[in-house]
Amino acid sequence: MSKAIIIGGSRGIGKAISSSLSSLGYEVIATSKKELDTSNLNSVKDFVQKHTETDVLVLNTGGPPAKEFFSVTQEDWLKYHNQLFLGFCMILQKIKINDGGYVFLITSSVIKEPNEKLIISSAYRSAFASVFKILSKTFAEKNISFINIAPGPINTDRTKELIDNVKEYEKTLPMKRLGEPKEIGDFVKAIIENKIKYLSGVVINFDGAASSFVY
Amino acid sequence: MSKAIIIGGSRGIGKAISSSLSSLGYEVIATSKKELDTSNLNSVKDFVQKHTETDVLVLNTGGPPAKEFFSVTQEDWLKYHNQLFLGFCMILQKIKINDGGYVFLITSSVIKEPNEKLIISSAYRSAFASVFKILSKTFAEKNISFINIAPGPINTDRTKELIDNVKEYEKTLPMKRLGEPKEIGDFVKAIIENKIKYLSGVVINFDGAASSFVY
Amino acid sequence: MSKAIIIGGSRGIGKAISSSLSSLGYEVIATSKKELDTSNLNSVKDFVQKHTETDVLVLNTGGPPAKEFFSVTQEDWLKYHNQLFLGFCMILQKIKINDGGYVFLITSSVIKEPNEKLIISSAYRSAFASVFKILSKTFAEKNISFINIAPGPINTDRTKELIDNVKEYEKTLPMKRLGEPKEIGDFVKAIIENKIKYLSGVVINFDGAASSFVY
Amino acid sequence: MSKAIIIGGSRGIGKAISSSLSSLGYEVIATSKKELDTSNLNSVKDFVQKHTETDVLVLNTGGPPAKEFFSVTQEDWLKYHNQLFLGFCMILQKIKINDGGYVFLITSSVIKEPNEKLIISSAYRSAFASVFKILSKTFAEKNISFINIAPGPINTDRTKELIDNVKEYEKTLPMKRLGEPKEIGDFVKAIIENKIKYLSGVVINFDGAASSFVY
Repeated sequence: MSKAIIIGGSRGIGKAISSSLSSLGYEVIATSKKELDTSNLNSVKDFVQKHTETDVLVLNTGGPPAKEFFSVTQEDWLKYHNQLFLGFCMILQKIKINDGGYVFLITSSVIKEPNEKLIISSAYRSAFASVFKILSKTFAEKNISFINIAPGPINTDRTKELIDNVKEYEKTLPMKRLGEPKEIGDFVKAIIENKIKYLSGVVINFDGAASSFVY
Repeated sequence: MSKAIIIGGSRGIGKAISSSLSSLGYEVIATSKKELDTSNLNSVKDFVQKHTETDVLVLNTGGPPAKEFFSVTQEDWLKYHNQLFLGFCMILQKIKINDGGYVFLITSSVIKEPNEKLIISSAYRSAFASVFKILSKTFAEKNISFINIAPGPINTDRTKELIDNVKEYEKTLPMKRLGEPKEIGDFVKAIIENKIKYLSGVVINFDGAASSFVY
Repeated sequence: MSKAIIIGGSRGIGKAISSSLSSLGYEVIATSKKELDTSNLNSVKDFVQKHTETDVLVLNTGGPPAKEFFSVTQEDWLKYHNQLFLGFCMILQKIKINDGGYVFLITSSVIKEPNEKLIISSAYRSAFASVFKILSKTFAEKNISFINIAPGPINTDRTKELIDNVKEYEKTLPMKRLGEPKEIGDFVKAIIENKIKYLSGVVINFDGAASSFVY
Repeated sequence: MSKAIIIGGSRGIGKAISSSLSSLGYEVIATSKKELDTSNLNSVKDFVQKHTETDVLVLNTGGPPAKEFFSVTQEDWLKYHNQLFLGFCMILQKIKINDGGYVFLITSSVIKEPNEKLIISSAYRSAFASVFKILSKTFAEKNISFINIAPGPINTDRTKELIDNVKEYEKTLPMKRLGEPKEIGDFVKAIIENKIKYLSGVVINFDGAASSFVY
């Protein structure tokens, strides 16, 4: 039986991916923040001792609080540097991805269009997207695909926290609605189920036509 | 029964998409160059009179010959302007995409990393990618998704024409192989089959980790 | 005496560049639409017979009228294909750029963030930006720099035509004002005056921090 | 007399910028690593207590050693997180930029095309580029321009350390040479001297046409 580890797999997009991989017959290890807190490097070290290899790895984590630049403290930077960047690096350094496997990274549209209020997230998710791109080349010979999904506005608790009036906000979106976590879960499942491997080293903006840039 | 029109559907990537959509139960109209030559606007006009609506539209066409800038003639520019740009514009102006449908555009990695020998293709595919991005927003309200797939080196007749020694070339690629048309065919099928709609206005680099840019 | 040819040099940004290069002591040939209409290929052919070489070339042209996709006619596409793309290709095929020279291209922020109402401009300017990138490499050995300047909202007649209430619009901009043509003229002058050559193959978004993408 | 602070101003590109700003009559504070070590947050805190405001700020720092992903230690990540990211954040939080001023950031072409051996630099420079983009908007109302210069291969000690055979390497470059620090120094000077303000929120790839992406 193939194995899938989904970090941040108990809520939102991570949960949707966990469900979709379970439906494919994967042994799914979906961590909640209690089980693995990537902002705590000791928690990461414990985790990678218990889990040493996998076929599918999904790197996903909640975002930092909305804070503008001048109110971000040194403690904030360091905490979220761990949570959004360093914890993921340690996981990729320690957990072996089996040949022919997949690594998915769930980032955010802010990696391309950084957001004033989400400056911590914009910065560290960009940093990790860079590492991830490099590793897509390193792992390519082992037929392991690295796919960075950058969601726009998705119907999660997180979005509801960040947006005051979701109904009004939806009217401003091209599709007049938020994306559904299930669409991303199904997307991940479809890639794996169809053994699509040549999709690697790519950022997939999953944003319902909301972004302005062509590429 | 739902309908899919695949321009350039008789060979290579287009053929793979035709097969995959047939397997989903679509009524597939896959045109060869004889049936629809997008470099000939009269051929396009005939086609859009016969085919006035569809659920899925795949815009795909062969590439121009390899030519460096100073040897491209006015006739070359005009011919491929029709084939790679204007024909597609006319098709999108005339063929109605049914609500909830999909439009896929098959471009090339040269839209992002333009190639000296493929300068005609680089230019006009970029131009149409721009139109396509704009239309992704226009059509979003009708729940129609616009997905631009930009393949890297794929195992098609075209690639064999352009590359002298494919075996040697493959060794230089991160995955040590060309991509298979079927991977793209399966990708398109998977999007449609799973009713993934929020993926729109996006360029998907399908290149086996070959590109250098992060985004 | 060194020579500079500025296409579209009688108004707006082109005029500002003409003035700044005159102040550097260049022999400036600044064409108005009467003297060279790039939408008319015969006009282009006449021009390149009279002007066969230059040290500095500035490719600049007015934009097409605002039109949304479904109202663009075949005649519109063909006219602006000439004006924004093919005329420039012919000029670069025929006018020799002297070693150590410069070619500047004035495009628009729409090449990166395409605009629904400026769809013709978005498409063909993108196409030419692609050609221009390729040529930056071809000409690099001759120490000729290719610099693509992509202005955002600049204080020109064109902007006043496109924007209803400029005063109100300016309030929405990060700098609370339009850019001045002179800033671009001075920029071009500064590059040339300081013999900065290693800046080539680059797109310079000149938009007062208005764009959303990081790169 | 106007003031300019140049971090990492004693060598390479930083030194060239220091010279060019001195020639403009600026009071130049150019720090060496002894005077300000951005990898040491206490050193940064000392510095921002002594230097509380400036007209021009140049954020520049040496790069980390070449190391591939699996040999980067936790200590490495944390040290260069300080040096390339957190130190700069603290400087921008504490040093007041006077109205009408300039902030230049010297990054690297690896922010756009990340490099396997320069993975630390690729990651943290990307992170800070994201912060910098956001701040370009925040500071725009005060007429302060934020300009990110991303050099390609420049003739510095750093490049000589990283490249084995510089002569051979130069033959592979489009311009058949490295860029000169003075070209960047002159570029910065030219922007300031000509009071060009509308160039902000932009990444300027200064790479002699070496990059592959169009944008």
